[in-house]
Amino acid sequence: MALSIQPYKGARDFYPEDKRVQKYMFAKIRQVVESYGYQEFDAPLIEPFEIYAAKSGDELVNEQLYSFEDRGGRKVAIRPEMTPSVSRMVAGRRQELAYPARLYSIPNLWRYERPQKGRLREHWQLNVDLFGIESAKGDAEIIQVADSIMKSLGATPDMYEIRINSRQMLDIKIQASGPKKEFSEIISFLDKKNKMPQDEFFNRLSEYVNDVAAMKEWLSSADVGDMGGEIFKFKESLQTVGITNILVDPSLTRGFDYYTDIVFEVFDKDPENNRSMFGGGRYDGLVAQFGVEPLPTVGFGMGDVTLLNFLQTHNLLPELKPETSVTAILIGDVYEAAQAPINQLRAKGINVAVDSSGRKIDSQIKNAVKSGVRYALFIGESELGSGRFKLRDLAQGSEEELDLDQAAAKLSAE
Amino acid sequence: MALSIQPYKGARDFYPEDKRVQKYMFAKIRQVVESYGYQEFDAPLIEPFEIYAAKSGDELVNEQLYSFEDRGGRKVAIRPEMTPSVSRMVAGRRQELAYPARLYSIPNLWRYERPQKGRLREHWQLNVDLFGIESAKGDAEIIQVADSIMKSLGATPDMYEIRINSRQMLDIKIQASGPKKEFSEIISFLDKKNKMPQDEFFNRLSEYVNDVAAMKEWLSSADVGDMGGEIFKFKESLQTVGITNILVDPSLTRGFDYYTDIVFEVFDKDPENNRSMFGGGRYDGLVAQFGVEPLPTVGFGMGDVTLLNFLQTHNLLPELKPETSVTAILIGDVYEAAQAPINQLRAKGINVAVDSSGRKIDSQIKNAVKSGVRYALFIGESELGSGRFKLRDLAQGSEEELDLDQAAAKLSAE
Repeated sequence: MALSIQPYKGARDFYPEDKRVQKYMFAKIRQVVESYGYQEFDAPLIEPFEIYAAKSGDELVNEQLYSFEDRGGRKVAIRPEMTPSVSRMVAGRRQELAYPARLYSIPNLWRYERPQKGRLREHWQLNVDLFGIESAKGDAEIIQVADSIMKSLGATPDMYEIRINSRQMLDIKIQASGPKKEFSEIISFLDKKNKMPQDEFFNRLSEYVNDVAAMKEWLSSADVGDMGGEIFKFKESLQTVGITNILVDPSLTRGFDYYTDIVFEVFDKDPENNRSMFGGGRYDGLVAQFGVEPLPTVGFGMGDVTLLNFLQTHNLLPELKPETSVTAILIGDVYEAAQAPINQLRAKGINVAVDSSGRKIDSQIKNAVKSGVRYALFIGESELGSGRFKLRDLAQGSEEELDLDQAAAKLSAE
Repeated sequence: MALSIQPYKGARDFYPEDKRVQKYMFAKIRQVVESYGYQEFDAPLIEPFEIYAAKSGDELVNEQLYSFEDRGGRKVAIRPEMTPSVSRMVAGRRQELAYPARLYSIPNLWRYERPQKGRLREHWQLNVDLFGIESAKGDAEIIQVADSIMKSLGATPDMYEIRINSRQMLDIKIQASGPKKEFSEIISFLDKKNKMPQDEFFNRLSEYVNDVAAMKEWLSSADVGDMGGEIFKFKESLQTVGITNILVDPSLTRGFDYYTDIVFEVFDKDPENNRSMFGGGRYDGLVAQFGVEPLPTVGFGMGDVTLLNFLQTHNLLPELKPETSVTAILIGDVYEAAQAPINQLRAKGINVAVDSSGRKIDSQIKNAVKSGVRYALFIGESELGSGRFKLRDLAQGSEEELDLDQAAAKLSAE
């Protein structure tokens, strides 16, 4: 029986035109994060199970983790997120590293989810982490980096919104309104505020705190009134560096228990697609789980699926051309003799595919057109003799006779 | 109890200085393969177990595969090689693709091996595949690509050797010498020739063929005599395109049963490290396993661990500088005011890290030196007022006072 041509459920095949889009996004991202002094690292795809069990939420570990026993009986997992790996690596060089330390990576991550729009089982995620800055300047930088990425990809401030909150302030409010459950449970519930009908949310709030009225007033006070001086000062400092589309959202929690202070989320403002795209915050406690001195840490993660979705919704993807500039079409048995001019073009930085099939010229041209490569260069005995070659623009149907330098100049200019 | 800082056995942490080396190698590789018209693709990390069981060797599937059941009861595996994935994807677009089709990828692969020099559990592997060329021109191109990569990384022909063989010719010789076992077993045994003492190899050869003397003469006839016209014509055609370090090796098999004609391997010629580094060949039958029309295919794989080892042995790695050009050292409370000049530098393509720790200047300088970043730019109230900044070369200890444009020019020139 023939094998299936389908990729594994919830994972994607990247044909060259798909990979080109991913490479475009990642190149922009790398350029921005490196301009802020971040340096790329990488970690193994597989980690010991314990490093996720220790900190990631229960849902992730019990329902979404790809974990198994290896052939040596070790319990391992395919990484569902990068934060435990980078914390482990920084702990491994706690003394050797210079601070502030800036690290980024773009790993593929796996979670067993029901595939849906914006959520797949395999996705790539930019991770940006800043180690060693205690003050809110660290948080400000991280938000600046996220904002700069959005702008570098063509987004304008009307397309997205950055929501911020202070977990410390929120904790004080929860304490004041009489908590009825563990803080982690309350945080996790508050995170669901925008994911259910508001009536239902406020009805259920009484299961979590005694003073529902006070909490309701607090959570509804988006960006107005005297919500706490610190977070507003923080907002103002972001405005002074040019970030205007920023809003304090008192219900923002990011769900996880490990955030210790400022959290943020970037929202798509498209009316059809209004939702949280990505975010991050401060998590000062994670590096110390590996047995070293605690280290102030702030960071964020940005997934490729939601980002691509945003770029498509707002029509921000440029037209991306194939990496190959020209197909060499061979007339007659000139494969070996044609290598010299072809390699000269390559040496000038031009990407040349050769049709070495020996098919008829018509069939070669048809396939060159089908491949999406823009130009065809015809090489036969007479061209090799005269040093002049026909260069055809397959998109426009026009044709020029050029020497090799002229052809190289024309192809380089594209 | 604290969590371990060690990576999973046989896998590597890539700190920025390690990642930089990998990025250097992959950038060179991408440049070369794209100059030949290859386009990058990618496939999911996880594939159905069956696609490996169908073709990969028994050792790989039974002893080395990371396979497990997912939460939906599907038997899956982490890819140990990329060939089944690319065959699946090409089969999925058998009609839509233009031929010749050229695809490459640089995936991470997993095999449960005993970690040793040149062999790890996780490695990255360049995969280059050419689809749709039946003639030896396809094989020649693939070997040219491999050779061009070696040269682009600084290797000279005395450092490595390309060995070629014809599996068709070998099959005829095996047939003529009276095979006593399955062809796949004989092929697999012949592949071990250079991995055991020659006496032992020729003693054991009698278990596999009747006419040991004829087979011994054949296998020992390296690159001399009339071994078969075709493979020598092939060798000559490679020589005409400038590949001189090439040798016909009649015992070369690549071990796998699926190769159908020409196979090749690239050997490190360093006396201390003499061994096969990577290779490939023609495998015309794989795409058709996915229920489509057969497609001539030739390709090779090149692993990052052996390549890095080669570059280190032959001292071919250049000194790679950090991506970050300069650390901004803040004098006093100028974080917000300093953003303007810093972002102007970034807009000019200069990567600037900021020390926003608020520590004493001495401590900031000490950490800038420790980070390996070459320059420090001092920014305080007076610098912001005058528009002139001290730029210190931390490697040489020299210092200049420059305006922002001058500083940008100097940093860009580095």
